[in-house]
Amino acid sequence: MNKEIQQTSISELGEFGLIERITKDIQLKNSSTVKGVGDDAAILDFKDKQVVMSSDLLTEGVHFNLMYAPLKHLGYKAVIVNLSDVYAMNAIPKQITVNIALSGKFSVEAVEELYAGIHLACEKYGVDLVGGDTTSSLTGLTISITVLGEVEKDAAVLRSGAKPNDLLCVTGDLGGAYMGLQLLERENEVYKVNAKMQPQMEGYDYILERQLKPEARQDIVSAFQKLEIKPTSMIDISDGLSSEIIHLCKNSKVGCNLYEEKIPMDEQTKEMAEEMNINPLVAALNGGEDYELLFTISQNDYEKIKTDPDFTIIGHITETADGINLITTGGSAIPLVAQGWNHGK
Amino acid sequence: MNKEIQQTSISELGEFGLIERITKDIQLKNSSTVKGVGDDAAILDFKDKQVVMSSDLLTEGVHFNLMYAPLKHLGYKAVIVNLSDVYAMNAIPKQITVNIALSGKFSVEAVEELYAGIHLACEKYGVDLVGGDTTSSLTGLTISITVLGEVEKDAAVLRSGAKPNDLLCVTGDLGGAYMGLQLLERENEVYKVNAKMQPQMEGYDYILERQLKPEARQDIVSAFQKLEIKPTSMIDISDGLSSEIIHLCKNSKVGCNLYEEKIPMDEQTKEMAEEMNINPLVAALNGGEDYELLFTISQNDYEKIKTDPDFTIIGHITETADGINLITTGGSAIPLVAQGWNHGK
Repeated sequence: MNKEIQQTSISELGEFGLIERITKDIQLKNSSTVKGVGDDAAILDFKDKQVVMSSDLLTEGVHFNLMYAPLKHLGYKAVIVNLSDVYAMNAIPKQITVNIALSGKFSVEAVEELYAGIHLACEKYGVDLVGGDTTSSLTGLTISITVLGEVEKDAAVLRSGAKPNDLLCVTGDLGGAYMGLQLLERENEVYKVNAKMQPQMEGYDYILERQLKPEARQDIVSAFQKLEIKPTSMIDISDGLSSEIIHLCKNSKVGCNLYEEKIPMDEQTKEMAEEMNINPLVAALNGGEDYELLFTISQNDYEKIKTDPDFTIIGHITETADGINLITTGGSAIPLVAQGWNHGK
Repeated sequence: MNKEIQQTSISELGEFGLIERITKDIQLKNSSTVKGVGDDAAILDFKDKQVVMSSDLLTEGVHFNLMYAPLKHLGYKAVIVNLSDVYAMNAIPKQITVNIALSGKFSVEAVEELYAGIHLACEKYGVDLVGGDTTSSLTGLTISITVLGEVEKDAAVLRSGAKPNDLLCVTGDLGGAYMGLQLLERENEVYKVNAKMQPQMEGYDYILERQLKPEARQDIVSAFQKLEIKPTSMIDISDGLSSEIIHLCKNSKVGCNLYEEKIPMDEQTKEMAEEMNINPLVAALNGGEDYELLFTISQNDYEKIKTDPDFTIIGHITETADGINLITTGGSAIPLVAQGWNHGK
């Protein structure tokens, strides 16, 4: 049976048939999930844990382009975007609900592909899909996901706890997802002009994966627990490093020095940036969608993380009056702006 | 200052400015809300209560028509639709997150109108708005809401507990929202032909309100508590009585007899149906959007509800083998179907 050619219309199956099809294999994994899909609401029991709750919405043409985002990857990424918010609270995601609106162009098989990605992310991150709404739209695809997570009382980390002299740290590397997107957009433009052109994407697996199938930093929350660190503040990097640092500083009422030379970037990110004549620093500062964690720790915790390859210290917190600055390799201080910082371009 | 003419573009204010504007007056009302909007996620603490969770998504042109649904009413209704699911679990709604996607045609003032309705519903029903996502869409308006509610352990009522001989009951009256929609659509058609024609809606306030500004049955959950009744099963009426009875019977693995003459309908519903040559029974069975509660109780609880004007006993539960039937006024048994039951039309 060739998946490419089988196209069952959703009206053939009906709304209830479609929901049955995409929820039939769900097995609940978490003790806090008492009842999942199939009633007016799911029932959950968090006992003595606190609960964190976050929502994100992705729309076709704005957050994704179906020309180059395969539906399975899109479903996976839509879940990851939400889980990342939960990890950024130092919490463990446990349940999601998924609402999707579909236009008539989507077949049952297309919806199954989307849900295959959603289920895969749930499987990998130990999350239960407990409900949602599947409905039609006049145009395009919209995905709205809400996630709940658990955290021990007083273990949640807010954006507002950074103090002067705290170290500013980041996980992984930055700018990759943005350069992956630039590559996909370039090849899509070429394809639109000549559909027979082979896309030139060899050697760029890492940045493509950062864009198309990102992961959320589940491991970092466990690492904090093992290292006995509670960050003083934390946020996930969805909009770009600049914007997140500004959120963190404004919420904490502090300033910050960020050091250009410390910002971690992968080799592929730098190569692609060079090839496309983009300053890689711009990709890291303003690109977004890396889903790494930005956090601050007390200097007392420095010894605990200094050799850990997952963490990079990229700056330190200052007084509010000192401002929020990028310290360039040349040593000048440039105020960070959220909308886009242009350096030598 | 004339509200009609002030139109601030969203790009003028920016995403963060818009969020600031629509969340600035939020005051948290529930002890289970530890932290609301402003971080990666909200923080909640339900202590020894269980939590129910439900999501709904509304899209322009499918679930609402901005030609006749004022934005404030739309925001209000979008919340009500979700709260209704929580009441249908015998639970009390406590928190919502709101995700909206907006096309370029919406001004800041339009978004404020929408949120005015959302805030009003939150105020009236004692619910905290704790987060969400405001983003752009290429076309139209999409609203996705998730609600959390609290319920004492083992007090939640599922769709699956109905037993043979239980009484089938409904709150309020049915078919009004559907007839309100028919009226709005008729007047909209007239308006499209001649914009100078005055809409003919006098005397139909009730059915218009049922469609445009419905309420959720908050009072019923308190009434059950006061009467010391725990329904054996419950569901809210969003798709129409037929469809909900079938859900309830299938989940409970039972049959049911529904009596035509017992189905409660308001006089305006019947009058409008007559005027439009629609069988009012069709409006009640298949219309939907009434947001009343359909539930079953043990016969032992009959004495507790028999004089209560909020409740109407419309039938009783039977064995699965007896099927799910409408018993007409003439005495014949007609199997109920979810898609639409046509009686003498």
